[in-house]
This record gives sequence, structure tokens and C-alpha cells, in this order.
Amino acid sequence: MKRAARIDLRAYLADARQLAIDEIRRFVPAGDPCGPVLYDLMLDYPLRDAKGLRPALCIATSRALGGGLEAVLPSAAILELYHNAFLIHDDIEDGSEQRRDRPTLHRDHGVPIAINVADGMLALALEPLLANTRVVGVGKALRIIQTVAKMSRETAEGQAIELAWIRAGEWNLTDADYARMVLKKTGWYSFLAPVTIGAIAAGADGAKLDALVEMARELAIAFQIRDDVLNLGAAGPYGKETNGDLWEGKRTLIVLHMLRSLRARDRAAAKELLALPRPSELSAQLDALVAAGDLTPRGRAKLERSGRTKEEADIARLLAWIAQTESLAYARGVGELHARRAREALSRAELRPSAHHELLHALVEFTTTRDH
Amino acid sequence: MKRAARIDLRAYLADARQLAIDEIRRFVPAGDPCGPVLYDLMLDYPLRDAKGLRPALCIATSRALGGGLEAVLPSAAILELYHNAFLIHDDIEDGSEQRRDRPTLHRDHGVPIAINVADGMLALALEPLLANTRVVGVGKALRIIQTVAKMSRETAEGQAIELAWIRAGEWNLTDADYARMVLKKTGWYSFLAPVTIGAIAAGADGAKLDALVEMARELAIAFQIRDDVLNLGAAGPYGKETNGDLWEGKRTLIVLHMLRSLRARDRAAAKELLALPRPSELSAQLDALVAAGDLTPRGRAKLERSGRTKEEADIARLLAWIAQTESLAYARGVGELHARRAREALSRAELRPSAHHELLHALVEFTTTRDH
Repeated sequence: MKRAARIDLRAYLADARQLAIDEIRRFVPAGDPCGPVLYDLMLDYPLRDAKGLRPALCIATSRALGGGLEAVLPSAAILELYHNAFLIHDDIEDGSEQRRDRPTLHRDHGVPIAINVADGMLALALEPLLANTRVVGVGKALRIIQTVAKMSRETAEGQAIELAWIRAGEWNLTDADYARMVLKKTGWYSFLAPVTIGAIAAGADGAKLDALVEMARELAIAFQIRDDVLNLGAAGPYGKETNGDLWEGKRTLIVLHMLRSLRARDRAAAKELLALPRPSELSAQLDALVAAGDLTPRGRAKLERSGRTKEEADIARLLAWIAQTESLAYARGVGELHARRAREALSRAELRPSAHHELLHALVEFTTTRDH
Repeated sequence: MKRAARIDLRAYLADARQLAIDEIRRFVPAGDPCGPVLYDLMLDYPLRDAKGLRPALCIATSRALGGGLEAVLPSAAILELYHNAFLIHDDIEDGSEQRRDRPTLHRDHGVPIAINVADGMLALALEPLLANTRVVGVGKALRIIQTVAKMSRETAEGQAIELAWIRAGEWNLTDADYARMVLKKTGWYSFLAPVTIGAIAAGADGAKLDALVEMARELAIAFQIRDDVLNLGAAGPYGKETNGDLWEGKRTLIVLHMLRSLRARDRAAAKELLALPRPSELSAQLDALVAAGDLTPRGRAKLERSGRTKEEADIARLLAWIAQTESLAYARGVGELHARRAREALSRAELRPSAHHELLHALVEFTTTRDH
């Protein structure tokens, strides 16, 4: 039974993703009339091996509430477009090197082109949102645009919270600080907006909508915690850099728990390691120049602003502390707690039995058990 | 008479700018609930010494067509917010160092924070656009959002055209190529959208709207050419880096004319100089290290990717070629041609006499005579 549901989930996700991509292709002009660095690149991230989670969640919510596919499809596609645009800017802001097993867009094409491609995607997404008035009527279309506005604002706020922590060197953070940031930074566009917009398209509100939004909120936190867990020592089909969160110095639930659990001296040492910048391409070049006798160690120290950058040994030390404080187990436990709450909220929505309702259940399970 | 009109223009621009800033303050939260790197920074560029051109143009168009101030004010403020958000991303993409006499936002706060502040501004702007339904009614509000969508898309397209030229090392461009890029990159958000939205708010369409949009189109090209002219050897209250366009290697009307007018050998040399990257902070550091004996010249060449960067002498050589080919006079002439066409289009709109109508005339004059 459980196994059957998981197989269905994969097929449902793949279908939803394909529907969204077909829809996106309808409004992204082919042949790139403005040169090769705009419209073609808009499909770069969406066509990489993605899960299709957001369109699936939007479609399943809407259809589980009795809505039709046609009414929700443009919105589901727009959410996928926003998601991928946010990822492009996010990857630049976080200094991420890989996305879905390939170099990030700014590493492939440079920061200027990558910034602009995402801006173009956000601009383009406004047009089908407006055309939606003809699909779902003016009232619903305006409420959907309102939700997209809220989602975009929450995303920028979440990003700002994290960037402010980095700038201030802030590590003294609670699980609640973490949850607030996560809900804003990725939770809104990944879970709250897809569920809310699916419900609006189906014409649902009141207690049903409240319960589903609650489910989305809990699912968002559970999903991000699972992401944090998978990022550590990741092997297999995950698509991000192994231990990338530690290299980037991210405030994950695991790292925050580790810091709280260490003795003061180790905590201070761990913070120092986490805050070190990752080695840049420059670092490798400098090493080579010193080895060739073209650069003195004093010159090297001047060029490497930080004094020193993270090394494999630092990551190993952080991983040892994480093991010592059992922070991975802790994070898994908190993730399961949020998944349970998501399950309970879904029950409170009292949806009628349907394949789409089952899909929502399967999504909740997937969130805490996924390995990619 | 002409003098009196110029004094009016300054006061009108200052008023419009203040109205827009007051309106922006109404929807940007004070106290920055998400840390110090989001909402406070949204006001950074708008509060620098700006002209207020876009809100003035939007308000004057609307009022010259008989519309009221209240109906157009939120739109005028939103245009100012979009303008400043575009500038932030634009400054990163162009590698600009100064904006309105101060360091660009990404130089003050880093690229990640700057990208996100502009994203937040674009997200925030959607809310008053939606609230506009209560100010001008659903029909007009939707048409205004449509214009904003079109404007955002044109801006990304213009940016993409320029970035593609840079990537391909394309200098073989006609005045028509230049005009197409300029209309998209800055013309839409600076002129076409303010005029179109002002007209929508006032309920105007048909031949009147067509004539005013034609005026905006001509004004956009004239304005950018004047910008190109002012950028060369700029002195006085201009706010951008002197000769910044040459340092950045921009495709200005002046540079394109110079390249066309030079003999083949000089043309090839000029293209090479233009394409050289500008010296980075790294370059200055490397010079110091070589001088101190910490870096060999061979090591320096490896670290400076390009081999060599632009120098003052290169800029002087380019300026001499520009003088030799009389490209500045050529650009001034083309600018005046577009200003004349703008004036003719404004006459065709047959607006009734009013202070706002006079203001539009003054704006056309200002475009070709301004010194800042």
C-alpha cells in the first residue's frame, strides 16, 4: 500500500512537471529574438532534473478540493517559473556552485546574464497571471496575483534575514529563528503559495483553506530540515554539492543544534570555522603561484582577503562535532514532528477521498523520507 | 519665456519627486522587521539626488489629459520604485561604480544584498498596483499592471541585447540597433510606461494616446543620446563617473559613429581598447605586490585574466578618435532630430493649454539641453 502510493507519487510529480513545462513553453518565445542570453536560458533550470513538487502540490490541492485542471494549470506553471527565477538569484547570493548536478547559471554564463534572465522570468510571469482573468475570472485572478505578490515579498524577506545573519556573523539562533527564516525564504514559494493558489482556483476558503495552509507551513519546515540532512555527506541523486551547506556556512537546524550543544571552547572554534570563506578559484591559483615561486607567502596573505579559507579538514572537524552532538538525529526528530503536524492538519481539512487527496498524503510522507 | 519655463520645470520635477517619495514611504515598512539589509536600503537610491523625471512625466501626462492627481499618484510612485530597482541590478550588470555621486549599492553592501533589495522592491511594487483597483477601478488597474508587465519585459530584453553584444564582442552596430536597445533597456521604463500609464489613469486612448506614445519613444532616444554626450568628459552635477561609458566599454551612439568613421586600422585598434576590461581592485593590488617584490611579472600576468586592463592613456586615445571623427557633434545632431520629432508628436496630441501641457513641452526641451 505504502509502496504503491510512492510509485504513484513519482508518476504524479513527473506528470505535473511536464504539464508545467509545456505551459511555460507556451509563453517563453522560441528562437530568442533578443540574442542568445535571455529566453533560451529561461528554460535552463526548469529543464534540468527537477522534482516538479510545486506544480504537483498546486494541482493536487486544487483538484482534491474539486477544482478542474484547466483552472489551475497556468498558476502551477507560473509557480514553477517563479521558483526557478528565485533559484537563479539565490544561487548567486549564496555563492552556490552546483544546481541539479550541473554548474549554477551564473557559473555557466556570468553574474550579469544570470541576474537578467531571472528578472526576465519574473517579468514574463506577470502576463499569464493577467491572462488568468479569462481562465478563472477577475476576482480569483486578482487574489492569485495578490498571493504571488505576498510570496515574492516573503522570499525577499527570508533572503534578507539570512544575509543579515551572515553579515553580522550571527550564530546564536533558536529553532524558531530558523523556522521563521525558512518559511519566508523557501517555504512561501514552495508550499504556502502553491497550496493557497490551488485553493483559490478551486474556490475553497474558510476552515478548509486554513487547515491546508497549516499543512503547507509544517511541510515547508519539514522539507527544509530534510534538505539540510540530505546535504550532509550526500551521496546519490541529490544534485547539490556534498556538504555544500558547511562549505557555504549556512545556518541549518543541524549546525544551530551542534553549536548549542558544544562546550564553549569548541563552540567558539566551530563558529570560526563556519565563518571562514570557502576557497575561491583565486585560492587555487594562488597556491599554484606560490608553488611555482611566482608569489611569496606574504604576497599570498595580502591577496587572500580573509587570511585563510575553509579546507577539507575543517569540514571533517565540523562533521565530527555534528556526530558528537547527535545533531543529525535531533534534526531528523524535529523534521518528523513537523511532518506529523502536517499530517494532522491535512486530516482537519476533511477532503473527500480521491487520487489527489492521496497524493497530498504521499507528499507529506515523501517530505521526511525522500533521499533526493 | 524660455527661462521661465525652465524654472517651472525644476519646481515641477522636485514636486513630483517628493510626492512619489512620500507615497513610497507609505508602503515601505519603517524599522526594517527583517534585519537591516532590506527595507531601509530600498530608499537608498530614491533618496539620492534624483531628477524625478518619471513621476513628473506620468503625472504631467495624466493631468494634461484632464485626469486628477489622486488617480495617477500611486502609479507614479510605483514607476519610481521600479526605476530604482532596475538601476540596482543594472549597476551590478554593467559593473558601474558610481550612481548619483556615491558608490553604487552593490559596492556599499555587496552583490548578494543588492540583488535582493531590488527583488524586494519589485515584489513590494505589486501591492500598490493591486490596491490601485480601489483608486482607478479594476479595468484601468489591470491595464496599468499590463503596462508594467510589458515594461519589465522590455527592460530585461534591452539588458539582454546589450549583454549579448558584450559577450559576442559585437561593435558592428547601426544607429537603428542602438535605438532598439535603448528603447527597451531604459526607454520603456523611463518614458513609454510613464506616458502610457498616465494616459490610462486619465482615461485617454486612440489618436491622443498614440501621439503621446510616439513622443515618449522619440524622447527616450533623445534622452539617452544626451546621457551619452554628458558622460564624456563630464564635469559638474552629473553624478556618474567621468567617461564611465568608455571605461565600461558601452555601445553609445558616439562610439558606434566613431568606429564607423575611422580607417580600418584605427577601427580595429579602437575596438580592442574598448573591449579591454576596466582595472579591478585586484589590478591595483597586483601592481603594489610587484613593486614590493612579492609577485613576479609572470605571476601577475597569470592572475590578471585579460592580460591587460584599460588605462587612462587608452581613454585619452579613444577621446582623441571621437574628436577626430566629430562623433560628439554627430550624436548631438541625431539627438536634436529625435527631440524635434518628439515636439511634433506632442503637437499632434492636441492637448488643451495647461501648466501640465507646458511642462511636457519643457521636458522635451530639457532632454536635449540638460547638463545633468
